[in-house]
Amino acid sequence: MSVETKYVEIKTQPWGRMTDITDEVAEKLRQTGLKCGTVTIFIPGATGALSTVEFEPGLEKDVPKALERLIPRDLRYYHHDTWHDDNGPGHVKATILGPDLTVPFLGGKLVLGTWQQIVFIECDTTERERKIVLQFMGQ
Amino acid sequence: MSVETKYVEIKTQPWGRMTDITDEVAEKLRQTGLKCGTVTIFIPGATGALSTVEFEPGLEKDVPKALERLIPRDLRYYHHDTWHDDNGPGHVKATILGPDLTVPFLGGKLVLGTWQQIVFIECDTTERERKIVLQFMGQ
Amino acid sequence: MSVETKYVEIKTQPWGRMTDITDEVAEKLRQTGLKCGTVTIFIPGATGALSTVEFEPGLEKDVPKALERLIPRDLRYYHHDTWHDDNGPGHVKATILGPDLTVPFLGGKLVLGTWQQIVFIECDTTERERKIVLQFMGQ
Repeated sequence: MSVETKYVEIKTQPWGRMTDITDEVAEKLRQTGLKCGTVTIFIPGATGALSTVEFEPGLEKDVPKALERLIPRDLRYYHHDTWHDDNGPGHVKATILGPDLTVPFLGGKLVLGTWQQIVFIECDTTERERKIVLQFMGQ
Repeated sequence: MSVETKYVEIKTQPWGRMTDITDEVAEKLRQTGLKCGTVTIFIPGATGALSTVEFEPGLEKDVPKALERLIPRDLRYYHHDTWHDDNGPGHVKATILGPDLTVPFLGGKLVLGTWQQIVFIECDTTERERKIVLQFMGQ
Repeated sequence: MSVETKYVEIKTQPWGRMTDITDEVAEKLRQTGLKCGTVTIFIPGATGALSTVEFEPGLEKDVPKALERLIPRDLRYYHHDTWHDDNGPGHVKATILGPDLTVPFLGGKLVLGTWQQIVFIECDTTERERKIVLQFMGQ
């Protein structure tokens, strides 16, 4: 059993838009040489989230739209009183979605469904450069 | 430390209904012989989710009802333009809930609360047969 | 590689209020002596949740308020028919948020963002004493 740390660096689009990082995670797994275990994918930052989705143009629009409907930008956010910024809804979205995702791997492959991709969800209100941590544990 | 992979196969009911898989996960843990570690429970597929709940008849209705209220089936989903199907809301629910759950175990037992069960949440719009992956890591 | 189990005990405030447990988790990590791995933070109980947030007075109000707006206390919950209690919305919130959080650590430090804290979210309707499980795995 060992632990291997890798990173994925991406440029994101704001307001709940998703970036597919599946290929990067699979490539980093290949580099570790590990065959069986888990990878914990984590965003160090309070306005991003990790999940999975069937990454296709329809859902690329549906997910941000649903997040906006549930946590609308035009409500009052007390966070804005603290910092005089505008990303209160982004913080709330990220807390609900969560900053972590743990995916098993077997035979050196991520155990994803055929139509399931790993995505970073940018909840902030401007585009960002993100460095996502991958903690591989296994043998 | 070692890694052991097991599976739980279930038949599900659609539209956010939950299946209690606690006994199956506990039995698979027993089979591994591991005493202390974590199990990552993961659904390979983009319309299912894992979480915990007090699994009783009231919440069996309340959770699907809340998911339907938050992500209603009668809104427009761009996903339907891509595939001409009807499970856009199911995809959005699953992305928000997340496909993974990691539960610690100690002394060969899952560290759940007395009134807390591990559930698979079927977000798809038809009943499905699901093969859930359990990645046990520990000693 | 080894597994080390620790606990954080806190007193919470109800209705979605958050408790920052970052310092406690960092101190327990220090006590393990582990340098590289993951910690799975888990609440044994069906009305609590774990996530991260920028823990500041604005978001301390925004997150509970958003949860109340999404899962309002004044709707009908079938859970109340089962037990004649009032925490149906708390159960639904906790199932959507999830009882687990896995955070990587490196060089003996949690890989959090500068403005990102680990929080327990109390979804129940009365204040509670909570014993959160920390399962550290690494080397």
